[in-house]
Amino acid sequence: MVQAAALQRNESGIETAVGVLKQRFGDRLQTGAAIREQHGHTTTWIENQSPDAVVFPHSTEEVANIVKVCAAHKVPVIPFGTGTSLEGHVNAPAGGISVDLSQMDKILAVNVGDLDCVVQPGVTRADLNTHLRDQGLFFPIDPGANASLGGMAATRASGTNAVRYGTMKDNVLSLEAVMPDGQVIRTGHRARKSSAGYDLTRLLIGAEGTLGIITEITLRLHGIPEAISSARCSFPTVDAACQAVMMTIQYGIPVARIELLDQMSVKAANAYSGLDLPETPLLLLEFHGSDSGAAEQAETFGQIAEEFGGSDFTTTSTTEERNKLWQARHDMYWASLQLRPGAQGISTDVCVPISRLAECVTAAQDKAAELGLLAPIVGHVGDGNFHTLLLIDMDNPAEVAGAEDFVGWLNDMAISMEGTCTGEHGIGQGKRPYLVKELGAATAYMAAIKSALDPDNIMNPGKIL
Amino acid sequence: MVQAAALQRNESGIETAVGVLKQRFGDRLQTGAAIREQHGHTTTWIENQSPDAVVFPHSTEEVANIVKVCAAHKVPVIPFGTGTSLEGHVNAPAGGISVDLSQMDKILAVNVGDLDCVVQPGVTRADLNTHLRDQGLFFPIDPGANASLGGMAATRASGTNAVRYGTMKDNVLSLEAVMPDGQVIRTGHRARKSSAGYDLTRLLIGAEGTLGIITEITLRLHGIPEAISSARCSFPTVDAACQAVMMTIQYGIPVARIELLDQMSVKAANAYSGLDLPETPLLLLEFHGSDSGAAEQAETFGQIAEEFGGSDFTTTSTTEERNKLWQARHDMYWASLQLRPGAQGISTDVCVPISRLAECVTAAQDKAAELGLLAPIVGHVGDGNFHTLLLIDMDNPAEVAGAEDFVGWLNDMAISMEGTCTGEHGIGQGKRPYLVKELGAATAYMAAIKSALDPDNIMNPGKIL
Repeated sequence: MVQAAALQRNESGIETAVGVLKQRFGDRLQTGAAIREQHGHTTTWIENQSPDAVVFPHSTEEVANIVKVCAAHKVPVIPFGTGTSLEGHVNAPAGGISVDLSQMDKILAVNVGDLDCVVQPGVTRADLNTHLRDQGLFFPIDPGANASLGGMAATRASGTNAVRYGTMKDNVLSLEAVMPDGQVIRTGHRARKSSAGYDLTRLLIGAEGTLGIITEITLRLHGIPEAISSARCSFPTVDAACQAVMMTIQYGIPVARIELLDQMSVKAANAYSGLDLPETPLLLLEFHGSDSGAAEQAETFGQIAEEFGGSDFTTTSTTEERNKLWQARHDMYWASLQLRPGAQGISTDVCVPISRLAECVTAAQDKAAELGLLAPIVGHVGDGNFHTLLLIDMDNPAEVAGAEDFVGWLNDMAISMEGTCTGEHGIGQGKRPYLVKELGAATAYMAAIKSALDPDNIMNPGKIL
Repeated sequence: MVQAAALQRNESGIETAVGVLKQRFGDRLQTGAAIREQHGHTTTWIENQSPDAVVFPHSTEEVANIVKVCAAHKVPVIPFGTGTSLEGHVNAPAGGISVDLSQMDKILAVNVGDLDCVVQPGVTRADLNTHLRDQGLFFPIDPGANASLGGMAATRASGTNAVRYGTMKDNVLSLEAVMPDGQVIRTGHRARKSSAGYDLTRLLIGAEGTLGIITEITLRLHGIPEAISSARCSFPTVDAACQAVMMTIQYGIPVARIELLDQMSVKAANAYSGLDLPETPLLLLEFHGSDSGAAEQAETFGQIAEEFGGSDFTTTSTTEERNKLWQARHDMYWASLQLRPGAQGISTDVCVPISRLAECVTAAQDKAAELGLLAPIVGHVGDGNFHTLLLIDMDNPAEVAGAEDFVGWLNDMAISMEGTCTGEHGIGQGKRPYLVKELGAATAYMAAIKSALDPDNIMNPGKIL
């Protein structure tokens, strides 16, 4: 594991707060080593920094209560959803209280006529979609993991559908949140747009719990399209695949998903998911629309693909075949780990203007090869976002150093291409130095906002800034 | 005119700052009464509060220079685009310097492959679209007025296309801004999505110049669709028209525009634009897509409209007829004023969940009738946003009082329906009491952010908060 800086602990404050909360929450406050460790754990190479206690609130009022106790004793509060974040977001570098929101999992309202719903933060995206299915609605954001919607909002998550439906920032209408002083606010209501004051909704989305705890989320929903079809197409090179993506976006084809798997990823998918895809770069697509609309999109894409040397273009609209293909895409993390059993997977997350994508992906492949790293690539290429999964033996210091070099080099390269070091994973602990490189002077104003709203730095300290 | 509260003036600071800036900017700083008055003027019923001087910078560096001088002497800075805002946004209640950005009107880059561009804040939306046309691209946000893109970002503008393309918050990738201390920041780069830190882009969008001056905007562009067609359909009642809108949105028909004109607005349009529309509530629509896609959308809408008693459903894809229809829509403000020559038009801007829209519009019609006010209504009904244009004799105190009653009553009603007092016009001076009603405790955190970034309250004081 890579070390994360520890912050000064407020021992006496923590002891008092844990005592007070234990009295109030009884068995819903846990201090066992295993549960604490589990709440510091994330799918990351950063060392675990466990909280001192984990508390399971059932209501906004209880969250406010917890935050007020922690505020009174200047004790860190770390919101926890499902623990699927990747940059140490739920670590507790100064100790404190992990607030596990998984038991706040009620769908409070579904307004079919308005295409919106109101949920508690612990509802997962899969649970919500299961609940919505009978009503002909769905929530499109799909980061892969079955994350909680509160966590997805907090990290400004996106994933495979973002090319058409946007990210969490585009699909949250408003929030209820407990602020660092324990006050409960609403950032808006259910209007589909508003120009009423500062956009606190978007400020909290992506703030990674450092400005408050999200306790209720009003989400935009979409009608399940009449037709959903999938396609796949193989390309001779990553460059050819990226050219096809760029042309698809320029043509305005409203693709619902357009995903790249590089050659190494295709090999991994074939082995893990029992497929027999040609082992060259692959695009996986999904089209949403009316029957004829989805068919037309697929046809137009087919023509574009042909222009760039695409081959083996296959479409399918049966649910079973479609699910098999997308299951393989979702399983890419596990499939890739099988390329090197026992290795730790370290995911990068750069996002660049699409015109620079081919160059950036190709350079990443070359750099990994040069460093001797096994590093399959998948990407949400309609947005210019891709993930290199470095497969690292963490007991080999030279490899770990190589991985650190690679991550830094790739982040710097994306920034130099007018891109970002994080398209969707967030800053957490791991990317803090790159945030400064990317946004420079702007980070001072982020820090000013943080100090103004959370003067004692109790909300998820050590993250982002 | 309705009076706006004046704020304490810093006379000596203003005198010094004007003197220093006059030396630096020469003829590009103006202090004549006419130009000062023009820069306090907005299309509003709020009295004019002129700035002490108007300065015309040509570069970000010059804007930073102006702000630094004003910061040193604690003098208000009021950014000015085209002066088409509606809630006293450019008034100078404490005097100070109006920064007119109209000469910062360069299109700095168009990246066709990435569907984005970089513009200075003084570029208007019409100028940008003229520039883009040859490249097959367009920028969709259309608030009606030919506003500057800087002003549109500052007020989180939207308009007729928002139902499909979103608002300014959805179409700005990143900003460059001069902050209250004169520092220049970038809030992001050209990646289509990012999870890098607090979303300062969205914080500045809609901040109405109270947190900084936007000096460069990176915008998302869209390909001009293969086919653009329009339709109109008359309905027996506002309720029937709204039901058709709701069903259209639920069906997921990706309408590019769906606008309501109530009976009184249709009469005004007939008279002003020489049309002969049936004088009942009307929906105007626009469809974007492939040839067959746009046709299919129109056909599906036609079926929905029929279900709700729609009649006289007419589609057109010739540019000339289409332009005539939309020109009439754009001219509604002037057409409505002709219903009562000499009257002042006062526009409301509520936005409610679509399921409440018919009820809200009908109640607004009834209330206006009850108060004896002439008040045609138009609406961006796909978003639940509509504007009542009160036609008021400002020399008649009883009428002005009635208008104030109406505005307050309507804002309260929208808020009670989980909506907002402003879908797109912003808070400015006029809606400050309603912001507090709408968002309550949240406004305290807006104030904390404002104080943190602008401790001397020099950036557009007296607006929003």
